[in-house]
Amino acid sequence: MKVSDRTIERLSLYYRYLYILFQQGTQFISSKHLASLVGLKPEQVRKDLSYFGSFGRTGKGYEVVSLQRAIAKILGLEQGRKVAIVGVGNLGMALAGYKGFEALGFRIVAIFDSSANKIGKKYKGKVCHDIADFKEVSKKEGVEMVILTVPSEVVQEVAQSVAAAGIKAILNFAPVNLNVPKAVKVNNIDLASELKRLSYYAQGNRKDAD
Amino acid sequence: MKVSDRTIERLSLYYRYLYILFQQGTQFISSKHLASLVGLKPEQVRKDLSYFGSFGRTGKGYEVVSLQRAIAKILGLEQGRKVAIVGVGNLGMALAGYKGFEALGFRIVAIFDSSANKIGKKYKGKVCHDIADFKEVSKKEGVEMVILTVPSEVVQEVAQSVAAAGIKAILNFAPVNLNVPKAVKVNNIDLASELKRLSYYAQGNRKDAD
Repeated sequence: MKVSDRTIERLSLYYRYLYILFQQGTQFISSKHLASLVGLKPEQVRKDLSYFGSFGRTGKGYEVVSLQRAIAKILGLEQGRKVAIVGVGNLGMALAGYKGFEALGFRIVAIFDSSANKIGKKYKGKVCHDIADFKEVSKKEGVEMVILTVPSEVVQEVAQSVAAAGIKAILNFAPVNLNVPKAVKVNNIDLASELKRLSYYAQGNRKDAD
Repeated sequence: MKVSDRTIERLSLYYRYLYILFQQGTQFISSKHLASLVGLKPEQVRKDLSYFGSFGRTGKGYEVVSLQRAIAKILGLEQGRKVAIVGVGNLGMALAGYKGFEALGFRIVAIFDSSANKIGKKYKGKVCHDIADFKEVSKKEGVEMVILTVPSEVVQEVAQSVAAAGIKAILNFAPVNLNVPKAVKVNNIDLASELKRLSYYAQGNRKDAD
């Protein structure tokens, strides 16, 4: 069963809040409460969840643990995922050593760069491979997802090589909208845009009504 | 005039795509086209934009440059913003040296940590201050926004000190929902969650219909 991008987006959100609820020791949650946490309508939450089965709904609401597990299964979070990082600059290196990934089942299995200065050297305990060998190395290491931390000028070209090697999931940090085959999903994190989104509030403009 | 969080969110989106259109040399854009780029309804776009005045709308649509400028003015992007980073780990250091910020008018003016090993040392050309001196140093340096790259265990406490020093805009990288006064706006970037959102697609599950 293939699910739309928007549904996957919402399921990821539910998962994130269920995880927090679970940590807090909450056992049951109503669709109304879950909806208010994620900022959606209760009908939407009920529709999304009913679509995938009953999810252990009882008179008290959904059971947090079983709902979380069921969503994890749909999102493919049960098994670990092998991840490669392309672009060993400051950000790439920071991500290569980021402990939060491992804790959630994501393992950085390979890192790549195009610079002769970096290829063959070790960063955060991983040997940097030549991006020209991406297809070969990523097959050998079983890479399933790729994080792109290369400069904007080359990211489109790199994304095409990554897609051509059969990778279907890319997390892109360059502020560029990538053009890749439809079967490939790209999520973007644009760090400067995140600051822009905050800039309005820097002078204490927050509307209390929100 | 204070604007709701959701409107600011949409204006930031418009701004991002207008910037790309501007780079591509596009002069005019219809509300329909802009709506399709950002994934909203044309009525919503027209409503948001009419709210702030005419934005140079002509028979050909909105003029990209003037629309972009008008939104920049609302979002407070015209003047630069002074930013501090709290937490000089791998990610904090990567962000302290990130060139994409400066290009958009964000200047990292101070960095902080609590570790005696780091305080007083220079990272990416900036002296690391003691987080205990945040209020004093941030006043002196005119800090307007803060990026938090501290561990999850301490982020709530750090956020409270930052808010107590009068900072109204925080970009938080720890996977924790911060509890701060209402006047403070927090945006979260949860890197591991971004990988989770992509995990579903790693096995080629993308629905073509999207």
